[in-house]
Amino acid sequence: MNKTLQSYLEDISGEIRKLPLDGEPGELYKPVSYCLENGGKRIRPLMTLLGCELLGGDVKRAMPPALGLELFHNFTLMHDDIMDGAPVRRGKPTIHKKWSINTAILSGDVLFALACRYISKVPDSALRSVLDLFHQTVTEVCEGQQYDMVFETKKDVSVDEYVRMIRLKTAVLPAACLKTGAILAGAREVEQQKLYRFGEYIGLAFQLRDDWLDVYSDSTEFGKQTGGDIISNKKTWLYIQALAMAGAKQKEFLLDAFNRPGSVDDNTGKVEAVKKVYDSLGIGELAQEQMKEYYSKAFGYLDIVCVPDSGKENLRELAKNLFDRKK
Amino acid sequence: MNKTLQSYLEDISGEIRKLPLDGEPGELYKPVSYCLENGGKRIRPLMTLLGCELLGGDVKRAMPPALGLELFHNFTLMHDDIMDGAPVRRGKPTIHKKWSINTAILSGDVLFALACRYISKVPDSALRSVLDLFHQTVTEVCEGQQYDMVFETKKDVSVDEYVRMIRLKTAVLPAACLKTGAILAGAREVEQQKLYRFGEYIGLAFQLRDDWLDVYSDSTEFGKQTGGDIISNKKTWLYIQALAMAGAKQKEFLLDAFNRPGSVDDNTGKVEAVKKVYDSLGIGELAQEQMKEYYSKAFGYLDIVCVPDSGKENLRELAKNLFDRKK
Repeated sequence: MNKTLQSYLEDISGEIRKLPLDGEPGELYKPVSYCLENGGKRIRPLMTLLGCELLGGDVKRAMPPALGLELFHNFTLMHDDIMDGAPVRRGKPTIHKKWSINTAILSGDVLFALACRYISKVPDSALRSVLDLFHQTVTEVCEGQQYDMVFETKKDVSVDEYVRMIRLKTAVLPAACLKTGAILAGAREVEQQKLYRFGEYIGLAFQLRDDWLDVYSDSTEFGKQTGGDIISNKKTWLYIQALAMAGAKQKEFLLDAFNRPGSVDDNTGKVEAVKKVYDSLGIGELAQEQMKEYYSKAFGYLDIVCVPDSGKENLRELAKNLFDRKK
Repeated sequence: MNKTLQSYLEDISGEIRKLPLDGEPGELYKPVSYCLENGGKRIRPLMTLLGCELLGGDVKRAMPPALGLELFHNFTLMHDDIMDGAPVRRGKPTIHKKWSINTAILSGDVLFALACRYISKVPDSALRSVLDLFHQTVTEVCEGQQYDMVFETKKDVSVDEYVRMIRLKTAVLPAACLKTGAILAGAREVEQQKLYRFGEYIGLAFQLRDDWLDVYSDSTEFGKQTGGDIISNKKTWLYIQALAMAGAKQKEFLLDAFNRPGSVDDNTGKVEAVKKVYDSLGIGELAQEQMKEYYSKAFGYLDIVCVPDSGKENLRELAKNLFDRKK
């Protein structure tokens, strides 16, 4: 009988509290504690445990690299928040706002080192595979973040380019988390790869849902103002798809609204006007369809993993939770 | 017959030119190429090769982790230059000046990932030891950089605290480079540790000489203005030692000169006045003595490495070059 998701999440939280973060100098380690205490859904380490569980491994062995992957994820948040100029994360000031940019750089670097240490806490027989996958993933996540920054000033981003970007920035990490679990279970490469693809498509769907929720969620449930991406001129899947389908006049309006600062001085009006264009093109429905396609591909890969179907319940539940989330 | 230092350095340069740095997006990888093409003395990878050579290992096997350690060193330069606000490195604009802070953060991160990849290119039998040492070293280097930043605004730094800082920031990396070579040679732990200590004391002496050269070098040979550390209020070994020995009046002058912006408005005058205090306390000679003590400890460890003395020539020559350097 497998443990419940909730029970695994409690294990993860317990282990995170035990991380050695009281080192000296405090100026270096306190921001790391702050970042990790600040919560997060812990989806990525959960995926590592579930990947290991699914393929019949000893889940305890998967915990240290699962933590390492969560540490790496938090490192990317620390540095990305500097680059994106984000003032708030999970309702609290970001590290570079609370302390300084220098602190966020260096505490991020030491967090990366800690991630590497935990990733390496695996049996010798798995070390090489786990590391190769991790180093490839880190490289790809950096590439994805760079594309994201390039897109901020690039006018003609295609839907394909956008998908490549979110694949690198967002999707390869859950993919790697799942595959790491599979490696630790001693699964064959072909089974590992199925879990990788499952995670990759879940990641793509997750990001698309994020883009969709920003515009179409019930703002009271979503917990933040709808249209935040529109106000901050973020080129989401919805915007890029709309631009690709828009007529000349709509295209001019969208380009103006997202690229000419001050072209719309009333944010509520801007969100409404952009939403109207999206609606007239059916962008919301298209996004939903694309999301479902990604989910369906993801589940296709999970279906063909060569283990009894009963063992797949936890991963199915996790994927369903991600799909049903309101924020 | 061992190769010459020059021949090893040529091997290293050749391998650095072959690194895969033409990836996409170019915005991410071009700054990495720029940083690595910009030279540097390549002392650290040379130490790895020489550590391996000394203990009878196959030097070719030590090349990938040697490159990894050089990549890591360059990563620290990229991020440190942001934190220190340094505009120039090796006579050319720093990454964050030529591009942007965001570029220097992210290209640094991907360079760190590349470093990890090369560090891991070692035989399975050595992988665990090499990684453990590397992760510990990365952590310590971050701690050292943090202490350095803390010291900028801390008035009462003791000589011991300063030495701990430079040990972490500067000395543990050459120590780890040498030990990595020893690990790859399959040397016993006790021999590895002798090389680690050798590198650590060489590193301490190196930093002290750096501090000394800033004040006492012949400025035409040194290639940069003497007294740069004094002008920028950098708390070097000389300053901290002088403060510890100074009388009340000298102490007040030094504290004022280094901590109160604008207390001296003429830089040439400031350098002369501080130098006068150093001279009256004999700080230059004290620094030289301390440096010699570190060198002597370093050579003491090299002397007791259990291999024929004739094999130690390359490491002795390298250490001598570092000691004789004028800049």
